[in-house]
Amino acid sequence: MVAMLNVHPTRTADLRAPDELQVAPGTYVESFIDTFGNRCARFVAQQGTLRLSNVTLLEDPGFPDQVNYSAREVPVQQLPVDYLRYLLNSRYCEVDRFPIIATELFGGMAPGWGRVQAICDWIHSNVTFGYQFARPTKTALDVFAERSGVCRDFQHLAVTFCRALHIPARYATGYLGDIRVPASPAPMDFSAWFEVYLEDRWWTFDARYNCPRVGRVLMATGRDASDVAITTSFGMANLTSFTVVSEEVTQENSQSA
Amino acid sequence: MVAMLNVHPTRTADLRAPDELQVAPGTYVESFIDTFGNRCARFVAQQGTLRLSNVTLLEDPGFPDQVNYSAREVPVQQLPVDYLRYLLNSRYCEVDRFPIIATELFGGMAPGWGRVQAICDWIHSNVTFGYQFARPTKTALDVFAERSGVCRDFQHLAVTFCRALHIPARYATGYLGDIRVPASPAPMDFSAWFEVYLEDRWWTFDARYNCPRVGRVLMATGRDASDVAITTSFGMANLTSFTVVSEEVTQENSQSA
Amino acid sequence: MVAMLNVHPTRTADLRAPDELQVAPGTYVESFIDTFGNRCARFVAQQGTLRLSNVTLLEDPGFPDQVNYSAREVPVQQLPVDYLRYLLNSRYCEVDRFPIIATELFGGMAPGWGRVQAICDWIHSNVTFGYQFARPTKTALDVFAERSGVCRDFQHLAVTFCRALHIPARYATGYLGDIRVPASPAPMDFSAWFEVYLEDRWWTFDARYNCPRVGRVLMATGRDASDVAITTSFGMANLTSFTVVSEEVTQENSQSA
Amino acid sequence: MVAMLNVHPTRTADLRAPDELQVAPGTYVESFIDTFGNRCARFVAQQGTLRLSNVTLLEDPGFPDQVNYSAREVPVQQLPVDYLRYLLNSRYCEVDRFPIIATELFGGMAPGWGRVQAICDWIHSNVTFGYQFARPTKTALDVFAERSGVCRDFQHLAVTFCRALHIPARYATGYLGDIRVPASPAPMDFSAWFEVYLEDRWWTFDARYNCPRVGRVLMATGRDASDVAITTSFGMANLTSFTVVSEEVTQENSQSA
Repeated sequence: MVAMLNVHPTRTADLRAPDELQVAPGTYVESFIDTFGNRCARFVAQQGTLRLSNVTLLEDPGFPDQVNYSAREVPVQQLPVDYLRYLLNSRYCEVDRFPIIATELFGGMAPGWGRVQAICDWIHSNVTFGYQFARPTKTALDVFAERSGVCRDFQHLAVTFCRALHIPARYATGYLGDIRVPASPAPMDFSAWFEVYLEDRWWTFDARYNCPRVGRVLMATGRDASDVAITTSFGMANLTSFTVVSEEVTQENSQSA
Repeated sequence: MVAMLNVHPTRTADLRAPDELQVAPGTYVESFIDTFGNRCARFVAQQGTLRLSNVTLLEDPGFPDQVNYSAREVPVQQLPVDYLRYLLNSRYCEVDRFPIIATELFGGMAPGWGRVQAICDWIHSNVTFGYQFARPTKTALDVFAERSGVCRDFQHLAVTFCRALHIPARYATGYLGDIRVPASPAPMDFSAWFEVYLEDRWWTFDARYNCPRVGRVLMATGRDASDVAITTSFGMANLTSFTVVSEEVTQENSQSA
Repeated sequence: MVAMLNVHPTRTADLRAPDELQVAPGTYVESFIDTFGNRCARFVAQQGTLRLSNVTLLEDPGFPDQVNYSAREVPVQQLPVDYLRYLLNSRYCEVDRFPIIATELFGGMAPGWGRVQAICDWIHSNVTFGYQFARPTKTALDVFAERSGVCRDFQHLAVTFCRALHIPARYATGYLGDIRVPASPAPMDFSAWFEVYLEDRWWTFDARYNCPRVGRVLMATGRDASDVAITTSFGMANLTSFTVVSEEVTQENSQSA
Repeated sequence: MVAMLNVHPTRTADLRAPDELQVAPGTYVESFIDTFGNRCARFVAQQGTLRLSNVTLLEDPGFPDQVNYSAREVPVQQLPVDYLRYLLNSRYCEVDRFPIIATELFGGMAPGWGRVQAICDWIHSNVTFGYQFARPTKTALDVFAERSGVCRDFQHLAVTFCRALHIPARYATGYLGDIRVPASPAPMDFSAWFEVYLEDRWWTFDARYNCPRVGRVLMATGRDASDVAITTSFGMANLTSFTVVSEEVTQENSQSA
């Protein structure tokens, strides 16, 4: 089994407590960085009940997601070569089916931050959120036709629109720690958002909430949800229970667990 | 535009002539290695007719694809971590739809080389080759249902079966230089095959021809055809003509051009 | 709005109470027989809450589904011409994607009742039931790949296998009145099964329960679930509540309401 | 084998020569009318080469397809009940995936002839014709995403848009006899168009050519191409050659063969 239950290496410096995945019953856990730069844990699960847990403390400056309206799209010929892969097809982001649809909707807009924001606005307005619309095989085209889904579906469609317009985009998962959005009745979960490469770096966007949030703690990025599954089981596994708690701790600390 | 028209870095030592992509009209061509380890060329194409060409000479020992019946499958926990990505979903290899089908067909077999060979045998026997069955959006499930396709479709299905059984598999493209297979009336093309990680290395398999071939010259490997397209155009491009010539040169040299 | 909430015309003679759809708020309800032979009700729904209800009493001899192991498949050239349509593609039964899969699984079996039973056995054994696997766009190929679904999915796959083998098959909905199967914790619902034309008539099969049941009361048959939706709304409609009660009444009567 | 190689019963009165399918080698051919009202021929084909042919002469008034800009859409509650089925899902017309897309594109337009014409205009402008885009499993959603196809694909998308807007639409095949459109280099073929029920009758529309044509000779109508295949083979059959000749004969006769 491979788990992505640690904070992303880019946030390691902010850790104020160890960030080690606990596996019960105990087993050797190998930690490694995957080809997308995510910290992963690999271990052999025994038959029977398996319990994975992690508790840590992370300092966050408490600023909302950065916004930079003047950030430009980077021409493909100037993109860092390692990011070209974020322009291509992936399992849930069938870029090859979207060149025309994406161009019809967003092709006429000025390139840059505003166009990515327009993609988020369109999805936020046109796709209905609901857990009953989730299914593991749902692709961006399914989301576009059905106009419904969960977090991951919103971001998959956004990522696909971006790539179809030659804007590098990748899927992201992590903790969403702020309390500025009214509490939802649904149980808390890890959250998905997406990142877009503009100007000279990756920026956070979120087609689901579509407003800057405070306290995102990145865990992993990849081409789509396939690359950053919380756990990938090679063998039979049933999820019986799943809890995420993310709390803000006073004295300038915010904790994500 | 990004082109993969060079031999793979693993074959650079065998080159006996320069291997440089020619672009006409002339433009600056940037060469780089992508995240899959392939040599790529990036350039800005002018409007109008574009001509890409490459001619080189490569020394090949002339041995057929290696066969190792005793090569074992490597448990996921012992796989080099960089190869875990070759167990996951990709655009044309929807591993998430195949766990049951793959297990029904091949789950009862002894793990190892023989099981991968059984996958090739099954596909070779059950899928019909034909250029009329090609389409850019065809996935492994389409191939499984329709039982028809071209080279790339045969390999996509094989790759997907392997991954569904937790065997790392990747898609490969290159020149196929031997003359032991009767000439086909169809125009020559680059060829696709696939690679499987067994024991301690990657091995060549080919669900299309399903017999050891001489003179394969690898160009690129990736998750599926999306990652190793001969050319990926970011913008409008129409292919008007395409020619591949691969000839054996005497004096122990084999040429691929 | 068109509703199929009456018993099928073939059961009209068994009615011991009126079988009239009640619509509240009251509106003119037009009753008609559709091209599949089902009794339908058409009416214009006012904005606001709509309540559809029907209560009736039906006499049933109390025999289980008939079984006839010697019933033969009818060659296509001898089928009643009106039933040829039950050999063709429909929305959820993509016969065109199943000729090879169906032949691999069932092509080698002796034609006739036993082969249809083998189809039910295979689906019953290989498909997992669960409401969480339901979705309105799920097709037979989805069910085959995912091996999970609800009633309707089981029957769609069975219908598709039959048609791919040139056996006329149609989708059926109705009440399932017996109490011989242990009560399920899920709320009661209309049930789906399917009918197959063998020898000289249509026979009832059920890939979900896969055992003869007592007290099926047929409501409608069609090519697939699209043709026999309980209600088809031409305009926006949200289902807020749905209850089905089916009780056996003493004195040789069985009631379905 | 079932063939639809006769003119439609609505055109029988215009026949000036017998319209009988010839089958060689000779066999008994049963003629019947299917549930869609089409004339069909059923026969048992011997192993080996089969030749189907038909030659007939038909008088046509020579008027172009009728246009009636004032034809209104009929509310669902007033539609002839037999035509309700032309509002539903079928294999290649997945109406269930189009309610939002169709409403976005055409929902704001005035109902009636003009809206159907707008659908044809949109498809005619946005979908590229090409035989290389044909495949037997292509659905309306595929056409919408890929924006390419052959005759049948254009009409499937149009039919689906109409149904999603609650306008009855059916698929039609037949001869296209006029010579006003510049000859195409491709071999002649049967043609597909579609019919829409407006006001009080069915009207001919054609999203492929999108202009009134002279000399259409209807052969069959159905929900989609599945219902009106030129031939449906229950068993293995390979099409080796296919020729359609449609000529205008002087003295007020037009011949379709």
